[in-house]
Amino acid sequence: MKIIIVGASGTMGQYLAKAFEQAHEVIKVGRRRGDLNVDITSTESIESMFKQVGSFDALISTAGPSFVGPWKNLGLREFRTGIEGKLLGQINLVLIGQHYINPKGSFTLISGGLTYEPQLNFANASTANGGVEAFVRAAAIELENEVRINAVSPTVIENSPQYFSFFPGEIPVTMSRLEQGFRKSVFGANTGQVISIRE
Amino acid sequence: MKIIIVGASGTMGQYLAKAFEQAHEVIKVGRRRGDLNVDITSTESIESMFKQVGSFDALISTAGPSFVGPWKNLGLREFRTGIEGKLLGQINLVLIGQHYINPKGSFTLISGGLTYEPQLNFANASTANGGVEAFVRAAAIELENEVRINAVSPTVIENSPQYFSFFPGEIPVTMSRLEQGFRKSVFGANTGQVISIRE
Repeated sequence: MKIIIVGASGTMGQYLAKAFEQAHEVIKVGRRRGDLNVDITSTESIESMFKQVGSFDALISTAGPSFVGPWKNLGLREFRTGIEGKLLGQINLVLIGQHYINPKGSFTLISGGLTYEPQLNFANASTANGGVEAFVRAAAIELENEVRINAVSPTVIENSPQYFSFFPGEIPVTMSRLEQGFRKSVFGANTGQVISIRE
Repeated sequence: MKIIIVGASGTMGQYLAKAFEQAHEVIKVGRRRGDLNVDITSTESIESMFKQVGSFDALISTAGPSFVGPWKNLGLREFRTGIEGKLLGQINLVLIGQHYINPKGSFTLISGGLTYEPQLNFANASTANGGVEAFVRAAAIELENEVRINAVSPTVIENSPQYFSFFPGEIPVTMSRLEQGFRKSVFGANTGQVISIRE
């Protein structure tokens, strides 16, 4: 299977690339590093990435820039970080990628537990997640050629200890469990689902 | 109680204004009609609206522009209609309005059943709704001075028969039931809730 991982230089992306490239052709895409580069806030950049890749079977996105910080610093300008990045960036990967993906291919986007369990400082990520999850349900009934789409929703992950203090009481999910969530989406048959990852 | 209704010239807003102005001071705000005008996609316009209103006790928003149309016509440009309008427009009403609202005041935003029950042609509204609902949960734990925030989520409403054919099998909600949902948010004590309106 030919699998594109967007966000391949991030904490999740690196782990998933290693896991999936054992049995598959993985194209690692990062903002600045990787086999190819993409700026997901740019339609031109996304178009160029897909043109270079050609047809593919699965796209995994772990690309989720958003604003993290105190509510008092959160205005519309800061709010656009997560809207242009984690929300519209991922959506645009699907809107454009649908014209390059093989029949029965799949898109797997990244969401997160903040959709339903907000934490201080993360309102922007919560909002982007909520949009991503609703988009996945809506796109699932629109995509043609049996193309599927799901979101993976972990809470804080074990390889990002810098976030632990923001998530009191949250049991970090292991990278291995996170990987299984992506496997469920890429190799399963579900569509329009939000795959929740919890320990 | 001094209540601002943004979207007061729309189908929902007109009904709610009539219902609430029997016992309250209602300021009707529309894009072009009403006591005051606002373009919710403009920070300057929102600032100007709140400056004219001064302090208030409740803001109800029924302002939800989004793109409705075939998936094949839906690119990033069309997608921005709902993102700038129903999602960021409503969020910016809160981000700015929090500096004008009285202690214990409330914000009530409009979402909709499409968040969880998508229909063809409405992926943009689904996405905006999902974002609004997650934002409401996140903002509820951030807002100060006991200010509350909820979303009201109706399915298709009886006064918008032009949408019935897009929602096969959906029982339209009565305007009276919709009104009760907004009453629950404005006069109740809940915060961070999505108030689902169904017949």
